Amino acid sequence: MDTVKVAVDAMGGDNAPDAVIEGSLNALRLKKEIEVFLVGREDLIKEGLAKRNAHEGERLHIVPATEVIEMAEPPVNAIRRKKDSSIVVGLKLLKAGDADAFVSAGSTGAILVGGQLVAGRIKGVKRAPLAPLIPTKKGVSLLIDCGANVDARAEHLLQFARMGSVYMRDIMGVKEPRVAIVNIGAEEEKGNALVKETYPLLKACRDIHFIGSIEARDIPDGAADVIVCEAFVGNVILKLYEGLSSTLVDVIKTGLMSTLRSKIGAALALPALKRTLKDFDTDVYGGAPLLGLNGLVVKTHGSAKAITITNSIIQCIAFKQQDINGKIQRMYHEGE
Amino acid sequence: MDTVKVAVDAMGGDNAPDAVIEGSLNALRLKKEIEVFLVGREDLIKEGLAKRNAHEGERLHIVPATEVIEMAEPPVNAIRRKKDSSIVVGLKLLKAGDADAFVSAGSTGAILVGGQLVAGRIKGVKRAPLAPLIPTKKGVSLLIDCGANVDARAEHLLQFARMGSVYMRDIMGVKEPRVAIVNIGAEEEKGNALVKETYPLLKACRDIHFIGSIEARDIPDGAADVIVCEAFVGNVILKLYEGLSSTLVDVIKTGLMSTLRSKIGAALALPALKRTLKDFDTDVYGGAPLLGLNGLVVKTHGSAKAITITNSIIQCIAFKQQDINGKIQRMYHEGE
Repeated sequence: MDTVKVAVDAMGGDNAPDAVIEGSLNALRLKKEIEVFLVGREDLIKEGLAKRNAHEGERLHIVPATEVIEMAEPPVNAIRRKKDSSIVVGLKLLKAGDADAFVSAGSTGAILVGGQLVAGRIKGVKRAPLAPLIPTKKGVSLLIDCGANVDARAEHLLQFARMGSVYMRDIMGVKEPRVAIVNIGAEEEKGNALVKETYPLLKACRDIHFIGSIEARDIPDGAADVIVCEAFVGNVILKLYEGLSSTLVDVIKTGLMSTLRSKIGAALALPALKRTLKDFDTDVYGGAPLLGLNGLVVKTHGSAKAITITNSIIQCIAFKQQDINGKIQRMYHEGE
Repeated sequence: MDTVKVAVDAMGGDNAPDAVIEGSLNALRLKKEIEVFLVGREDLIKEGLAKRNAHEGERLHIVPATEVIEMAEPPVNAIRRKKDSSIVVGLKLLKAGDADAFVSAGSTGAILVGGQLVAGRIKGVKRAPLAPLIPTKKGVSLLIDCGANVDARAEHLLQFARMGSVYMRDIMGVKEPRVAIVNIGAEEEKGNALVKETYPLLKACRDIHFIGSIEARDIPDGAADVIVCEAFVGNVILKLYEGLSSTLVDVIKTGLMSTLRSKIGAALALPALKRTLKDFDTDVYGGAPLLGLNGLVVKTHGSAKAITITNSIIQCIAFKQQDINGKIQRMYHEGE
């Protein structure tokens, strides 16, 4: 059995390094094919391992990196200046082929920029989209692109659709993923200039199952498996999803606590309610892949807990076993 | 006391003409300063009035219009061809000054196109934005623009910010409305080309209280009173708001009904829960104004019930009494 080598940014996210170390150890325990490279400040990583009675070994390595890129730092500068940061060092492992994947809960901007500058794109891929899974009534959908490269062109969106289809089919097991483009109406003639230009390209593409436009209203229903949009719109959708879900849950809690009668009701109903709402929690699905790069880069929430890190590491197995990057490579090598 | 003359599209929406007639009669009952012009097929309106033991009188008039614009019709064609439709006839009343406002639950596209082509824009206004109120934890925010004119320019967004501020201040009573632009990060240098171009214009504008960028995540929290964005993004926000709210409520209902224990709990908690969730129901706020036109155009949900129609008609009073259009006119007449 081939091992899957995952470089993990030990310094990334609000709960680093503890949540990262904990999550990595759990992944190693759960999956024998995983090999982890913890990248970051050696003293802190050793301390974190010692606390958990763990140490380096055959499947767990420390890769020292003395610098840390902070969340608020301007990404391009940070990647260029902090050559010995955990993000740059981790991505270099990818580039060199010493790791199959890089998982980080650090600065999204730095990971996106570093992914392109340090790891580099697969030949033929014009942009590397960030593609989180979002919860729906029916399961999950892939929202592609939510990255930082705004003002995309039609040819980029077409690539997103194709890469997203491969991901949903081979990683998520959706047989013939339904691809839709985010639009302000269902009719073909609707939309802004970008959508109007992209629509016929998607329609003509033979290797995706294009079902047309999707209105934002229908996304939570699970009306498509791969939801294509440019990054500005994707960001708005992703963040509104997070914000509105948490606000509504707050509003509901307030409602449940507003009268004595409702409080008693809430106490009875809460366990079942929590179970259902858990399906709407993005954390359980691990991180968002940054597709089209040399190697897999997985960006997890800044507030990622150990469980998110574990799931993000484990999802790298399927990515390697299904040879997603090989498929993407062949897609663009063989030409359109 | 000056009467406020409101033309109402008797044929617009899924529940026309009954909900429209019912809503109009209620508005007349509640507010003595209202005068209603029901526009549409005379026979149907008369029948609807007769069912409710009502008839034409000093404050209630019928304006015959033989045609109806369907929801799915291409808007520009529909407005040009159906000269005797309730939407065109109603908007002509506005244009002629025979009505102060036009309320419709009909085709959004036709109302947007008709508003500009038939009623016309206030001199100096470059685009007429559709500006619905969306519910937040703290009350409501104005989302401007959610119309059909996509690919806006920076100067349009600046006008939206100024018109939206006047609306929130004088109609909604927010003393110094906080204006923010939808962006994918809080930092000034972030965003797509349009946002980067608009940001300094908003910052330099003296008659708005600009607080910078807003991420979609913070919208449900009520982090700004006037949320400025171009129509494609506004549409996505508005529709995701509707879709996600209803999906989450469904998910919660499923959760509450999943066990016997939770069912009992739900029965106890539901009345309080419904009360809280009602604040998140857009229907109670009436319709969305289409700002910057000669006269007020209010677009309500296609599924509008009588209560929505009533509220939409009533909101026209404040619009006239506060002389919103006069203020917008002077804003652009005095120059920037």
